[in-house]
This record gives sequence, C-alpha cells and structure tokens, in this order.
Amino acid sequence: MSILYYTLNNSVFSNFAFYSTASVVKMMGLSALTTLKRMSKDVFANPEDLSLAKNKSAVVVLNDPDVERVRRNHLNDIENIVPFVLVGLIYVGTNPDRDTALWHFRIFFISRVLHTLTYQFALPQPSRFIACLAGYLTTLSMATRVLLTVRP
Amino acid sequence: MSILYYTLNNSVFSNFAFYSTASVVKMMGLSALTTLKRMSKDVFANPEDLSLAKNKSAVVVLNDPDVERVRRNHLNDIENIVPFVLVGLIYVGTNPDRDTALWHFRIFFISRVLHTLTYQFALPQPSRFIACLAGYLTTLSMATRVLLTVRP
Amino acid sequence: MSILYYTLNNSVFSNFAFYSTASVVKMMGLSALTTLKRMSKDVFANPEDLSLAKNKSAVVVLNDPDVERVRRNHLNDIENIVPFVLVGLIYVGTNPDRDTALWHFRIFFISRVLHTLTYQFALPQPSRFIACLAGYLTTLSMATRVLLTVRP
Repeated sequence: MSILYYTLNNSVFSNFAFYSTASVVKMMGLSALTTLKRMSKDVFANPEDLSLAKNKSAVVVLNDPDVERVRRNHLNDIENIVPFVLVGLIYVGTNPDRDTALWHFRIFFISRVLHTLTYQFALPQPSRFIACLAGYLTTLSMATRVLLTVRP
Repeated sequence: MSILYYTLNNSVFSNFAFYSTASVVKMMGLSALTTLKRMSKDVFANPEDLSLAKNKSAVVVLNDPDVERVRRNHLNDIENIVPFVLVGLIYVGTNPDRDTALWHFRIFFISRVLHTLTYQFALPQPSRFIACLAGYLTTLSMATRVLLTVRP
Repeated sequence: MSILYYTLNNSVFSNFAFYSTASVVKMMGLSALTTLKRMSKDVFANPEDLSLAKNKSAVVVLNDPDVERVRRNHLNDIENIVPFVLVGLIYVGTNPDRDTALWHFRIFFISRVLHTLTYQFALPQPSRFIACLAGYLTTLSMATRVLLTVRP
C-alpha cells in the first residue's frame, strides 16, 4: 500500500502546512513594514514614487538607515525561510517521526520570530546571530535527512 | 477514501501548476532583462565582467538607475511570487472550491504582469502600488484559508 | 488507477528530492560564507554588530568588495535555484521520462556549482555567464513542459 504523505490527514504535513505558512506570512509582514517606513519617512527609491510623499520637495533616497534595516531583515528572511519551506516540503515525503518533525517546524518558526524582534529592536549581539543560527541548523537537519534517505 | 490533491487530474492543482509556473517564468524574464540592460549600457558589477563591455575603458558601476530599476523589480517579484507559489502549493491541499482557487491564481498572475509593466514604464503612482497590493492580498487570502484549516 | 508522483517510490521524485535539496544546501552555504567574510574582515552592516568585531574601532561598512561579491552570488542563487525547485516540483507531476528528468536535475546542479566557483574565484568571463545560462535554460525547459501539459 502506498502511503499518502501530502494530505492534511498526515499530521506531519498539516503541521508543516501551519508553520511554513505562518513563516511565509511573517516574511510578508516585512513587505508591509517596508512600505510603512517609506511612507512615514518619505523615503522612496523611484522618482515616480515621490508623488506619494507628504513633503512635496522629497527626493529619491536609497540609503535611509531605518528602511535599509527592514530591507536587510527581509532579505535575510528570504535567505532562510524559503530554504526551510522548500527543504521541509521534501522532508515531509521522507516520512519523519511526527514529534521530531513538529519540533523542527516549531523551533524554526520561533527562531525567525526572535530574529525579526532582535533585528528590528537592534538588540545586542549575539542575540540575532543565535536566533538566525537556530533556524539555519533546523533546515540543515531536515536537509541531512533528505539527502541520506534519497541518495542515488 | 483518500483524495489525491497533487495530481494533474485535480483541476485545482493543474490550474495552480499553470499560473505558478507562468509567474515564475515572468520573474525569470527579469534576469534576462537585467543582463540585456547591463550589456547595452556596459554596466557591470564585477571587474572580470568588464571584458564583456563594448567600451574597453568601462569601469565597475553599481548605481546605474536603469539597471537598478530592473533589479528592484526583480527583488519585488521574489518577495511576492515566491510566497505565492509556496503558500499556493499548500492551499491546493486544503481542497478549495475550484472556481475560487482559479480566480486567486488568475488575479495574482495578472497583478504581477501589471506590476512589471507599471515598474518598467515608470507609470504614475499609485498604479504600481495597487498592482502589488492586489497580488499581496491574494496570497494572504490563501494563507488565511491554510491557517484556519490546519491550525493545531 | 491514480499514480502517485510525490512519493519516494517514484524515482523522478526521489532524484528531484536529492538534487533540489543539494542545490538549496549549496545556496545556504553562501550564508555561512557571508558570515565568515564579515567576521574575518570586520565588515558589518548594523551598528549593534560592531561588538562582534576584533578591531574595537570598526565602523559600519556597506560596500566591502569581498563581502558584496558573496552577497551578489547569493542573490543570483536565489534568483535561479528557487525557480528551479518551484518549477521542478510541478514538473515532477507531469510524469516526465525518468532519464530526461534526471539529466535536467543533474545539469542544473552542476551548473550552479560551477557558477559559484567561477564567481568566488573571479574566473574570466564568459565562464560564469555560461554556467548561469545552462541552469537557466534547464529550468525554462522544465517550465515549458509544465505549461504545454497543463495549459487551460
């Protein structure tokens, strides 16, 4: 009998569905935060965007530290959350133990929430480094299981 | 009986397959456009790339406005199209209504085509903002269904 | 009878699982390389990161050529490897010929390893361009099959 891994009847998949979607939504929150920062500070990267500025003499600004902080945070999310979802989706297909998988998903999601908080509040290092590392190692752990399971 | 969501016999999946692949191909088009802009203007980011320049006295340039416009557009695609595909893939597994799902996929794809056109032709705002927002809300709508369906 | 494409019993999926995970892990390697370069050169983008610097008078630096080279390489990976995994996952569902699919996955992975080597060792062009193009065309080839198979 073939087992169906990619249905919500499989609790590994439904747990993955929850935490991966929550992680992506958190990442998408930084798009909104970038827009809010740009609007509140009149910091725009394109000449045609200046019509949105409150100050009608605003000019293009590409190096505002507050906007750039959000953008670096966003790019770091892309560099980490996208690999988590891609690898995690395949990891679900290796039929991992339910609880082991759930803790991978939980630790990853929590690490990314903490990473965002440490980044946006500029908390002292190595707090942000450790938050990022925890999620990174979680993804590598899932990738290791995939590579050992399916090696040609 | 288990239902197979991830086969092309499921029209929700085959519609998703079409529009998500079309969105990714559109995103990849901006890689090609970046290369074309760099070649046509001799704007290169690495010293070893200068051997490709028509003008043999070209130097490294990191702030050409035309190339940077394409690159910002490309990054915005990554920030929006990748979440759409990741969330959409899981959304297919929640067995959504066929037509509701199809309109999510269509609206998203159209929003990204319009976003690219407004960006590359520098059309007056808020045209680009609205195009981006439409796609963003479409992905959030799918994410909401996933999170409500699978919440632990 | 429905065929299950997304199980490791399907060798197209298990081959995809191996090469896509290997590609993502290679991409994640550039996160580690960025951190190593930042630490070795005391090049940090945030004021709070300066507490990690060996030189206690280090200041924020956003344009170090060595760090920026790794970051451009990383972004190029995101622009190419993420589309490969997203399109490849759907391509598996189109039931491609086993060997045709395997060669797509192999060529893509090799192209990205070569791309990284040519980038980090700054090898003469067009070596990096050709490495990148090979992977790009591989993804487009898979996308073409998907779009022709599922067109509405």
